[in-house]
Amino acid sequence: MENFFYRQPVPIDFGFGKISRLPEILEQMNLTRGLLISAPSMVRRGIAQNIITQSRGRLIGIFSEIQPNPTVLNTDACAAKLRALHCTFAVALGGGSVMDCAKAACFIAGTTFSSADYLSGERKIDHAGIPLLAVPTTSGTASEVTAASVLTDTKRGIKALLSSDFFYPAYALVDPELTLTCPPQVTAASGFDVLAHSLEAYYGKKHQPLTDLAAERAALLVFNYLRTVYYEPDNAEARAKMSEASVTAGMAFGMTQTAAAHACSYPLTQDFGIPHGEACALTLSAFWRLNSSEGPEAERLQAFSRRLGFKDSDALADRIDQMKKEMRMHTRLEEAGIHLADLDELVDHSFAPNMKNNPVTITKTLLKRIYQSLA
Amino acid sequence: MENFFYRQPVPIDFGFGKISRLPEILEQMNLTRGLLISAPSMVRRGIAQNIITQSRGRLIGIFSEIQPNPTVLNTDACAAKLRALHCTFAVALGGGSVMDCAKAACFIAGTTFSSADYLSGERKIDHAGIPLLAVPTTSGTASEVTAASVLTDTKRGIKALLSSDFFYPAYALVDPELTLTCPPQVTAASGFDVLAHSLEAYYGKKHQPLTDLAAERAALLVFNYLRTVYYEPDNAEARAKMSEASVTAGMAFGMTQTAAAHACSYPLTQDFGIPHGEACALTLSAFWRLNSSEGPEAERLQAFSRRLGFKDSDALADRIDQMKKEMRMHTRLEEAGIHLADLDELVDHSFAPNMKNNPVTITKTLLKRIYQSLA
Ligand SMILES: NC(=O)c1ccc[n+]([C@@H]2O[C@H](COP(=O)([O-])OP(=O)(O)OC[C@H]3O[C@@H](n4cnc5c(N)ncnc54)[C@H](O)[C@@H]3O)[C@@H](O)[C@H]2O)c1
Ligand SMILES: NC(=O)c1ccc[n+]([C@@H]2O[C@H](COP(=O)([O-])OP(=O)(O)OC[C@H]3O[C@@H](n4cnc5c(N)ncnc54)[C@H](O)[C@@H]3O)[C@@H](O)[C@H]2O)c1
Ligand SMILES: [Zn+2]
Ligand SMILES: [Zn+2]
Repeated sequence: MENFFYRQPVPIDFGFGKISRLPEILEQMNLTRGLLISAPSMVRRGIAQNIITQSRGRLIGIFSEIQPNPTVLNTDACAAKLRALHCTFAVALGGGSVMDCAKAACFIAGTTFSSADYLSGERKIDHAGIPLLAVPTTSGTASEVTAASVLTDTKRGIKALLSSDFFYPAYALVDPELTLTCPPQVTAASGFDVLAHSLEAYYGKKHQPLTDLAAERAALLVFNYLRTVYYEPDNAEARAKMSEASVTAGMAFGMTQTAAAHACSYPLTQDFGIPHGEACALTLSAFWRLNSSEGPEAERLQAFSRRLGFKDSDALADRIDQMKKEMRMHTRLEEAGIHLADLDELVDHSFAPNMKNNPVTITKTLLKRIYQSLA
Repeated sequence: MENFFYRQPVPIDFGFGKISRLPEILEQMNLTRGLLISAPSMVRRGIAQNIITQSRGRLIGIFSEIQPNPTVLNTDACAAKLRALHCTFAVALGGGSVMDCAKAACFIAGTTFSSADYLSGERKIDHAGIPLLAVPTTSGTASEVTAASVLTDTKRGIKALLSSDFFYPAYALVDPELTLTCPPQVTAASGFDVLAHSLEAYYGKKHQPLTDLAAERAALLVFNYLRTVYYEPDNAEARAKMSEASVTAGMAFGMTQTAAAHACSYPLTQDFGIPHGEACALTLSAFWRLNSSEGPEAERLQAFSRRLGFKDSDALADRIDQMKKEMRMHTRLEEAGIHLADLDELVDHSFAPNMKNNPVTITKTLLKRIYQSLA
């Protein structure tokens, strides 16, 4: 009999153009002294400044020194700014990188420590930080509804997950209009990230009825709309569907966590510079095939594939491979500058804790064989 | 383009036999001085006392003077007990009646007013009460995950909804084992309540992507398992599926609210003593047919019916009617002691605010015609 624990405490306010309601929302939540945390590109395009102006004094500063795959240094600097300005809340406007950095910074600001101390596991997150309103500008990470922040410690050479119930944003404002400006490669990579979240939530060991439901729906939306947003970046309806897919996938993997494809993505990003979603996509179809042909979930994945309109799991995986090719994602390690000589180290670095969530046990030998098949 | 707002802040801890984990949960939540709010039958069967004993001092009393379709007097008495014992939390163990009473009582305890003052709209619920852990013993109302409490004011002769963001339980402990003892008529009525929640959430004006998803899943589970739990009350797997259906439907109608069938149920219960779920079922198939044949949702409901394996919406409605007959629910007003002479008053009393959520506008003339067709 199935036992499960489910929660998703973040209110989701979804709608095209909804960003214009931010001032109202801040007023309703009685938030008066906040920092806007965003990306350099949002500053360049004047969007950040607009939001500050419209906030009528509620947002009093901006922090944007955040690089893709944010580092503990980015986070600590952001926390320092929150402290210096005596902020009582923050708004994160950006992709997963900005939101992840902001989630950790809102907590770190109230401590005397570095985010590195928490990422290493030395210290435990044991209280709430200042509230964060998360406003995604990509449809990908769903960081706006999850308790996770993925940070990189360049000094120690690790990219890892920092997760706590205290990290849930206080509010998710999901405005698909903000994703219209995503360049094709960001659209594609973050779209594959959504697909990876959906499929990994579905086959992950911690899957449960409510996450299965969300995962399947999110995957269906990706198969139906990712190509459209790639080829027609201005298609507002398709953008909205991908934003919906992203947040729906978040309702799934936020509980189940991710699995093998995500575990492999960390060194692919960290050591070889492949963007997160693309890095997940690289092994996603291989793990889908593996988990569909052996292990405890094989039959469920075959049935899932058929419900989504595919002949079988292989056909679903073929579609992923085909979409990757169309959208100019790497499909072979070689294209990404990864050579056979790198494989042993790549394998060694691929065993983040989420590797254990994969239904088929992944050994080093098996993983090397999978990487070889992608060489 | 679709805009929506979604939230469901209640953590859902679901599992067969999970009630045994209650002491641990209270400990983790640091709750030390609570009242167990339950039904006379739970007290008679010794279940309530067991739970108090196992709580090792964390539950210090019990209140069980709650009638089905709880009244404002029940609620005020419960609140008085919470006050007298200086309780800092409560556990509600029971069906919708117990949970609804407890939700309101946890708030009223912290005021100097009667729940009648809030039910009438005279006063507004403007702060949180003490936290409530909700443990359903029927699979029906999903009150454990919603912000609503349905109370009856016998003096004014109204049954109405009291709803507030402050009413969300702090924790939902859903243990299907607790429903094993439900007698067939309770199983059936509360099962139809789940179906009504699902279908009304799906066709209701405030439906949105995430509630559609949950509503469809919940309806599917009811069609697959309600008969089984009715004919095989000890079938643990089917009981678990119905509990899952109930809480999943709650994730839908908790946001959308209900519609015409629920609006009609209030006088059917209040004036004619028909149990809530059975009262909803009485008009549910008629409204499903109506909303499937005209108005803005007709096509969506036809497609929904086909996805659930029915030829069309009519076939789905036929199945509801057939199940009602099998499970000895009233299918005609006459059987319930409602005569043609009563119809005008019944119509007059059927216009609770949720009537406005119905996609086809319901006028008095139309509603009388619907009631006549069920005479
Ligand atoms: N917290 C989680 O649960 C979770 C889940 C998956 C991934 N992640 C992490 O999130 C990060 C990836 O996030 P991402 O995929 O959203 O990409 P990103 O935030 O790194 O952004 C990628 C690039 O796109 C730009 N960009 C973002 N939105 C734009 C827009 N609307 N218009 C134009 N340019 C825009 C950014 O400035 C950046 O240059 C990684 O660090 C990854 O590890 C976190
Ligand atoms: N809050 C909401 O959103 C919401 C939604 C729907 C209905 N309701 C309300 O909930 C009430 C109906 O709740 P309900 O359908 O759960 O019925 P109920 O709570 O009124 O219980 C019906 C009968 O079954 C008995 N019972 C309950 N569980 C039992 C068990 N496990 N074993 C044996 N007997 C058991 C009760 O003692 C009672 O006699 C109505 O007042 C209705 O208006 C509220
Ligand atoms: Zn990801
Ligand atoms: Zn109901």
